[in-house]
Amino acid sequence: MKKIEIIEVGARDGLQNESRILPASTRSQFVKKLSQCGFKRIEIGAFVSPKWIPQMEGSLQVQKNALKLKTKTQFSALVPNERGMQDFLKAPVHEVALFAACSESFSKKNINCSIEESFERFKPIIKEAKKNKIKVRGYLSTVYGCPFEGTINARVALKLTKKFLKMGVHEVSLGDTIGVATPKQVSHLFKLMKKNNIPMKKIAGHFHDTRGTALANVLESLNHGVTKFDSSIGGLGGCPYAPGASGNLATEDLIYMLHGMGYTTGVDLKKVIQTALWIQKEVGHPLMSRLSTAGIPKN
Amino acid sequence: MKKIEIIEVGARDGLQNESRILPASTRSQFVKKLSQCGFKRIEIGAFVSPKWIPQMEGSLQVQKNALKLKTKTQFSALVPNERGMQDFLKAPVHEVALFAACSESFSKKNINCSIEESFERFKPIIKEAKKNKIKVRGYLSTVYGCPFEGTINARVALKLTKKFLKMGVHEVSLGDTIGVATPKQVSHLFKLMKKNNIPMKKIAGHFHDTRGTALANVLESLNHGVTKFDSSIGGLGGCPYAPGASGNLATEDLIYMLHGMGYTTGVDLKKVIQTALWIQKEVGHPLMSRLSTAGIPKN
Repeated sequence: MKKIEIIEVGARDGLQNESRILPASTRSQFVKKLSQCGFKRIEIGAFVSPKWIPQMEGSLQVQKNALKLKTKTQFSALVPNERGMQDFLKAPVHEVALFAACSESFSKKNINCSIEESFERFKPIIKEAKKNKIKVRGYLSTVYGCPFEGTINARVALKLTKKFLKMGVHEVSLGDTIGVATPKQVSHLFKLMKKNNIPMKKIAGHFHDTRGTALANVLESLNHGVTKFDSSIGGLGGCPYAPGASGNLATEDLIYMLHGMGYTTGVDLKKVIQTALWIQKEVGHPLMSRLSTAGIPKN
Repeated sequence: MKKIEIIEVGARDGLQNESRILPASTRSQFVKKLSQCGFKRIEIGAFVSPKWIPQMEGSLQVQKNALKLKTKTQFSALVPNERGMQDFLKAPVHEVALFAACSESFSKKNINCSIEESFERFKPIIKEAKKNKIKVRGYLSTVYGCPFEGTINARVALKLTKKFLKMGVHEVSLGDTIGVATPKQVSHLFKLMKKNNIPMKKIAGHFHDTRGTALANVLESLNHGVTKFDSSIGGLGGCPYAPGASGNLATEDLIYMLHGMGYTTGVDLKKVIQTALWIQKEVGHPLMSRLSTAGIPKN
């Protein structure tokens, strides 16, 4: 039995892309329900400007409530800059997450700076995190393809992963932000990573199901020794670059496949489906998970 | 560049499970559009009782129209019994398909006889087909799991595949009818098949995306040397055992992954999406394909 670690990102990466804005109280309830599903790691908020991303307003309150939960779950929040870090530190959870891109155009349009500048911004955040014994996770987006530049060379993700790790990040999440990757690209990237001595335990796969390939890409990643995956309950968030399309891989679809293959996750699949159906009502539209629609089959 | 053969089953397996009944003329137009996409093999009808399956009424007319097309596409139709075979032979296409199950309960509920009896019914059909130089394809359904009996032992599919091949069937399509398989089960089955000297070129993978695992299962099948896959354009048909859920793997999702991995299919993906959007209007509801919703990405 091999253990797989799931990083549940629905409450941040998912809700951030939902058009309905949920108050901090509802998001706190959501985090509580998620921790009761058995997730060991949950991303719960982002210290971004509410002017740009109103969906994440009140993340400090969500953190405060999360810290009151009697749980072993580790919580994480996205921090884009020093100011965000100061807010995060008012009630710090276990981890901060940093967000960079593998495409200059995506970096400019998404976080309004070059890739190089984004890594400059990370330095003081990482320094502050170390001082406060907070773990740091790095996100690389548009690893396989960019909505503006098309296919991205795997060497970019390799270079930026090295850069992140050198800066003291404990793990890099490699995101197929627009869901274009096929297993061949995934295999190529991980071969390159291993050839360059990147430890697979420092990598998390972050796949989007926009073109149906997410679980095939997870399978290929497993074959290369990746043991950590990001996913979003109910496939929350959709794809901001293709209206109506799927975005983040749905957690329940991921867990269904993993458990069916004999992997353990520590997560209760039935509770995940219940929670997906609950948040579906809160966001006000049917979610994209295949499993939550079809149900768990008879054994 | 490895060639993969796609057997497009939307006009039969897909439409058969749609609630809106399309006339033979529309289905003939559909078959024409499909053949223009470049498919080498298309399943176009079924000679079943219109009392039970009104969706397939007029399949003889669809065959007659298909035979008039100037195309190299090979056509196939499902034939359940001798009477159906007599109708099929009034304007025979290249292939007949036979349908059996790996679960007794499913066989009883679906074709109203035991598995053994179903194979008895096949004998005169195969005899007649051979006399008329018509190819015969065998379907095995509920290979991995059954809605009534749960998980099915891989030895059942092995036994029935052998039986089909011994009877002169040129290919057996192995169906994950309710979409429960994970790659571990797929791997287990194909290892068993190979150990028992079943040639992989006589096997077609027929996966359903009901729980999101279809393309992961295709990937696992490719790793075992399977080179033929059934799929349904737009994911037509849904899942009759889970209302609102996905059924047949959507052809365009399959092709997107295959082409992305460097396989060739001879099929024009853009035309497939156009055809999916056309048939979507005819069946009157949005289809389940991830790719047709998201679109082909920038290269």
